[in-house]
This record gives sequence, C-alpha cells and structure tokens, in this order.
Amino acid sequence: MKVAFQGEAGAYSEQALLGHFGAVETLPCESFEAVFRAVHSGQCEAAMVPIENSLAGSIHQNYDLLLRNDLQIVGERFLRVCHCLIVLPGVARQDLRKAISHPQALGQCEAYLRGHGLQAEQGYDTAGSVKLLKASGARDTAAIASRRAAELHGMEILEEGIEDDPENYTRFLAIQQEPKAFQGEAKTSIVFTLKNQPGALFKAMSVFALRDLDLTKIESRPLQGSPWEYLFYIDFIGAIQEDTVRRALDHLGEYATMLRVLGSYPRFRADQG
Amino acid sequence: MKVAFQGEAGAYSEQALLGHFGAVETLPCESFEAVFRAVHSGQCEAAMVPIENSLAGSIHQNYDLLLRNDLQIVGERFLRVCHCLIVLPGVARQDLRKAISHPQALGQCEAYLRGHGLQAEQGYDTAGSVKLLKASGARDTAAIASRRAAELHGMEILEEGIEDDPENYTRFLAIQQEPKAFQGEAKTSIVFTLKNQPGALFKAMSVFALRDLDLTKIESRPLQGSPWEYLFYIDFIGAIQEDTVRRALDHLGEYATMLRVLGSYPRFRADQG
Repeated sequence: MKVAFQGEAGAYSEQALLGHFGAVETLPCESFEAVFRAVHSGQCEAAMVPIENSLAGSIHQNYDLLLRNDLQIVGERFLRVCHCLIVLPGVARQDLRKAISHPQALGQCEAYLRGHGLQAEQGYDTAGSVKLLKASGARDTAAIASRRAAELHGMEILEEGIEDDPENYTRFLAIQQEPKAFQGEAKTSIVFTLKNQPGALFKAMSVFALRDLDLTKIESRPLQGSPWEYLFYIDFIGAIQEDTVRRALDHLGEYATMLRVLGSYPRFRADQG
Repeated sequence: MKVAFQGEAGAYSEQALLGHFGAVETLPCESFEAVFRAVHSGQCEAAMVPIENSLAGSIHQNYDLLLRNDLQIVGERFLRVCHCLIVLPGVARQDLRKAISHPQALGQCEAYLRGHGLQAEQGYDTAGSVKLLKASGARDTAAIASRRAAELHGMEILEEGIEDDPENYTRFLAIQQEPKAFQGEAKTSIVFTLKNQPGALFKAMSVFALRDLDLTKIESRPLQGSPWEYLFYIDFIGAIQEDTVRRALDHLGEYATMLRVLGSYPRFRADQG
C-alpha cells in the first residue's frame, strides 16, 4: 500500500499516516493539491491530510479538495504536535545561538526560544530544516521539528516538547476513493449550505438535537461575495448506515440547498495504536 | 497613532491596517504574541490581526491571545488576498524560471506556476521574499506578494491576481485596550463554554434564534484532553448596549460555564474605504 502526504519525509503528516495505516510506503508531495491528485488518479491508494489544528484552526483548503475530488474520509487521527530541539551529534546547548524552522513552529516555541536566548531563523518546513541543518554542518544552530525528522537524518535531540502551549493537536483525515467497512463507534462528516431564511441554522441543528445525535464539530464558513451565505461543516456520532442518521439527513435535506456526506469512519480513540 | 501588525512592511496585515485606520504609523512585529504585547503594554494604541481566512480557516491562536490579554475588538475588515508576480525592473516573463514566496502563497498559486513553467522556491514570508529578491538581484526569479510589497521595494508587477482561487479572503480584527463608540450596524463576538449535557449547544443557539438575532459565525473548537468539551465562537448582529442582546447573553449565561464578550464593533461593509 502506498499513501500520500504533504511535506518532506519526517513531517508530522507522515507520522500520523504511519500511526494510522501502519508500515506502508509513503509518498511525499509538495502541496495538498498534489496529495489529492495522487489518490484521485490512483497513483496512491490513500492519503493522510491535516484538517484542523487546535491553534491554527480548520484547513478549509482540504475541505474544498475533498468536495472537488469526490473522495471518502475513511479514518481520523489526532496527533499531538511535539516539537524537538534538534542538533548535529555532539553539539551542546551552550554552543547554540540560533534555531531554524517553519515560521509557525518558531511561533509555537517563541517563549522557549526567548528564555534560552536563541534567535529564530525562518525556514520553509520543519522536517526540511533538519535536512538543511545537516547539510550546512552548523554547530551554533538547532532545528525545530518532530522526533521522527531527527531520527531520519541521524541527528540528536537536545530537548523534546519545547512548544509553549502543550495543547497543540492536529486532526488528520485518512482519505480513499471508496468507503471502508469498519466496526465500533462511528463519526460522520457532512458539508451543507442552507436556504437563506431566518433561523435556518437553528432548524438544521434541530434535526440532530431532536434525535439525540451528538455533534463533535460545527463550523460556519462564509461564502465570499454572499454576505449571508455559508458552508456549514458538521461532524456527529453515528454512521450513515444507521436508521436514525438516515432520517436526520433526510430531514436536513428539507432545509439544505446542498448536502454532501464526506464519509462515515471509526471515531479516533487516544488509546488506539 | 501607532498600530502593530505581524510580518514585514508590505504584508497583507499592514495593508488591512492602513485601510482601517488610515495613514497611521505602523509597527512590524515578528509574532502575534509580540503584536498583542505591544498593545497590552501601551507601546501601540492598536493592532490589526488576521482572525480567519476563507481557505486556511480560523486562527485560534489569535482567539487565545484575545482572551489572555483582555483586549477589545473595535473593528473588522475583510481583505481579498491578491497575489502579484513581482520582478526586478526590466525583467520580462520569458526570463523567469523560478518564483519565491511563503509556502502558503506558493500553494495558492500552484496551478498558475505550473501553467507558466515556474519552479516554486520556498521563502519565509511574502513581503520578505520581495526584499530578498531585490537584494539578490536575480533576473530569473519572481517573488509572489502584495502590490504594496512591490511598490515599497520599487519592484515591477508582471501580473496581478495570480492566485488559483479568487475566493481568498482574510478577515482582520482591529484591537484596542478599550471599547470605542460607533454608529451603524454592529457585530458582537463572544467565546463561551457549555455545561457538558445533551443538547447544550442547541439550547445555547436558541437564545439567539428565539430573539431573531442573526449569527454571522459559529465554530466549535475542541478542548484537548476533554473529548466532549468545546470552546464556542459566535459572532452575531447587534451590540451589547442593546436590550435584546443583553437579554440573550443573560439567557446564554444559564447554560454557559464561561462567557466572554470580545467586543461590539461596526460590521464591515465592502463599500467602506
């Protein structure tokens, strides 16, 4: 099995992918578009893409790509983003003057860097910064990336978990061309638009509340150029095969102008793999 | 008046800032934390920060910083992200082989770059890439950034609006220490948590629906480590000074375990400045 992800070897996406799919072949891609193309064209059987981060929010671009490519969500995985301070073998803390990484990672370690008198230097990628550091041979510089990125390049970890806010999680989705059968508690993700009328969202939510279906996510996304029109994202507990869920979605159809089920898949449990 | 923003001179945040506040002094900051510090400490009277993007989603980090720093939202502004292909004066399209920019901007222009046979090279910042290109003197390379970044550095624009998806908008918030009086249609932003009980969100939404208060945003954000607990963000039309709004928020207080009003401010209209 071959699974696509965005980024370089050692990226957090690759880590999530290996956690979910096990020891499969991985295909690094330059962009999310390229990841979806790889699955849509059949070059890969599956992909793993980030869909939301506890600090950076939902990645609407990947919702768009899901809708446009007509692929199925077949799984989810939460990964705690745990940044490591990575150096060339033998380099000691007191040798360091700079830290290089993706600007987002640098921002997430800002207090740590300030506290340790390390100057932030911006790179284009977390795992890529480790590769660059190794090639440069710089002994006054650390890279900030995942444990896996350090291990892949034979580098040393001086400290693990240097992010200022430990509540830094990314939710990843496993994507395939066809739905996959599974057992256990299910989650379903849908996207819809509503008629532009008063209380429309309240009515839409009633189809779940009246059937005791628990929501795990709700988000409105404004459609630009139409100040009162929105895409809504809802995730709820239940599978489309279940009677109650089918009735709720039928009911939602009475208010919706567009309704797409992105997939039903096993709910991720932290105690899994 | 001095207003802080994240990024380098010519950044989209600075453009939004000048559109909102007019011709004020601007303070470029390295990180969002530094932007909030500048306002909290009184170094600046105000700041302009992005809060959500139509492709990249809500920037939870700035919600956290708003909560933590106890500052007020005093305005909002939507800005269409319009990427330009920027070169040294005299460089022609056929001279180009590469384009440099922030990875997000490169991703947003992927089809354009592919169509024109330009290789993407990752930089750490859009406006910063223009500065770098100018310093390097490279005549086979273009930078991708805003019109303002090109003008600031005396560079030429070969093409404007090269983003693949023209529906690329960022919403910015103006932040100050104290609320500001205003006239016209108001929007209010709140953040709250709810008791963990069935139908809690549906009840919370009823306080608005029962009073015909229109929502312009709703978003749930999972609190990590507590699988059924969420922060909710809601924006609605109305000001906290209004009786109906005060009653709705009192009512919401019956279900909420935490409720914070981030500010009431004039709703942005595209025909404004």
